[in-house]
Amino acid sequence: MPRLILVRHGQSQWNLENRFTGWWDVDLTEKGEAEAKAAGALMKEKGMLPTVAFTSLQTRAIRTLHFALEAAGILWIPETKDWRLNERHYGGLTGLDKAETAAKHGDEQVKIWRRSFDTPPPVLEAGSPFDLAADVRYAGIAIPNTESLKDTIARVLPYYEGSIVPHLKAGATVLVAAHGNSLRALVKHLSGISDEEITGLEIPTGQPIIYDLDSDLAVLDRYYLSER
Amino acid sequence: MPRLILVRHGQSQWNLENRFTGWWDVDLTEKGEAEAKAAGALMKEKGMLPTVAFTSLQTRAIRTLHFALEAAGILWIPETKDWRLNERHYGGLTGLDKAETAAKHGDEQVKIWRRSFDTPPPVLEAGSPFDLAADVRYAGIAIPNTESLKDTIARVLPYYEGSIVPHLKAGATVLVAAHGNSLRALVKHLSGISDEEITGLEIPTGQPIIYDLDSDLAVLDRYYLSER
Repeated sequence: MPRLILVRHGQSQWNLENRFTGWWDVDLTEKGEAEAKAAGALMKEKGMLPTVAFTSLQTRAIRTLHFALEAAGILWIPETKDWRLNERHYGGLTGLDKAETAAKHGDEQVKIWRRSFDTPPPVLEAGSPFDLAADVRYAGIAIPNTESLKDTIARVLPYYEGSIVPHLKAGATVLVAAHGNSLRALVKHLSGISDEEITGLEIPTGQPIIYDLDSDLAVLDRYYLSER
Repeated sequence: MPRLILVRHGQSQWNLENRFTGWWDVDLTEKGEAEAKAAGALMKEKGMLPTVAFTSLQTRAIRTLHFALEAAGILWIPETKDWRLNERHYGGLTGLDKAETAAKHGDEQVKIWRRSFDTPPPVLEAGSPFDLAADVRYAGIAIPNTESLKDTIARVLPYYEGSIVPHLKAGATVLVAAHGNSLRALVKHLSGISDEEITGLEIPTGQPIIYDLDSDLAVLDRYYLSER
């Protein structure tokens, strides 16, 4: 039976500092590392072991995957890293903390950006310290300079369909270690959540979310692994 | 210009205890972790950064790869894990330390097994504590029950030709994080070392060995990265 396991990366330094991170490559905190290990230990304890794994090109998600696989005793399963599983690109908000964002744009505007499905934040300006144009990891990729959640979904879902679904159709248990918004894209798709509701749906860090699927990939059951 | 970087995994617990390890999945020691990180830091310092990576299905090699990539700041490069890069299978010697092996088989016989190119050790018997028949990581693979160095080479080189050479021909810098004997296979092939000489060639742990290649993959230069 195909199965999808979603794990949001553990706490990062900028999660802790409440800064917009997006595509900036911030590492896990010690707490984040512990969350990732606990996710893997839980998979092992419950006998819910992935057979293939996917993650983004961002260190915090890749390290979450590695800590989890190691704790589960399955560091050897195949893994694929792809930019289309990256976090939503927060454009010109990248690097700003809550107070800085409010001071620059006003609380109301920030609420709109956070809550809106299809309104992207202002673009990240070229030459910003957070400009990734020179980052070789994204060579050949049309790097976005901002994204709405809708934009993020528009790159996550084709990747899911093209690269993850074939494994599910072959009966695999697929682990996706990724980010709040790239995982929202998958949850929205699988659980049929509306555009309005998805922006308010919080995905907890380091908590494996399980989708049991039938052979046509219809959802049979959805639950937190910690609750089984 | 194509380039191949070979890194033997850092010290494992059984390297330290002088036990035959082979396919048994022994982890790195703290020293081994430090060796792996140092290999990655050296690649970064020298600006010799791989664009794609290969490793075995064994934890000590995979963790060496991950520590090295992390220290080099390139955890995001594609990585492929394959059993054909595993260590030589030491058959019935698996798990034995130097004294136990000598007591069981005699010093002279052990010397023959260590030095011979094509004489495998006795087979690992079914039901041995080191039997891997039930290990899901090798499901579908005809697991050897012993290997000579010649046998190891006979699985490493076809993998190299089929899966690594295409990347080299495309101009990649390929990192292979693997084991003493799977790397001997590559060094023998690339440096044209004889059957007699290869068994005595020691590959140091955690020391990146660089092969600069031309577009036909002929060796232009071969050196330890630490010496450049």
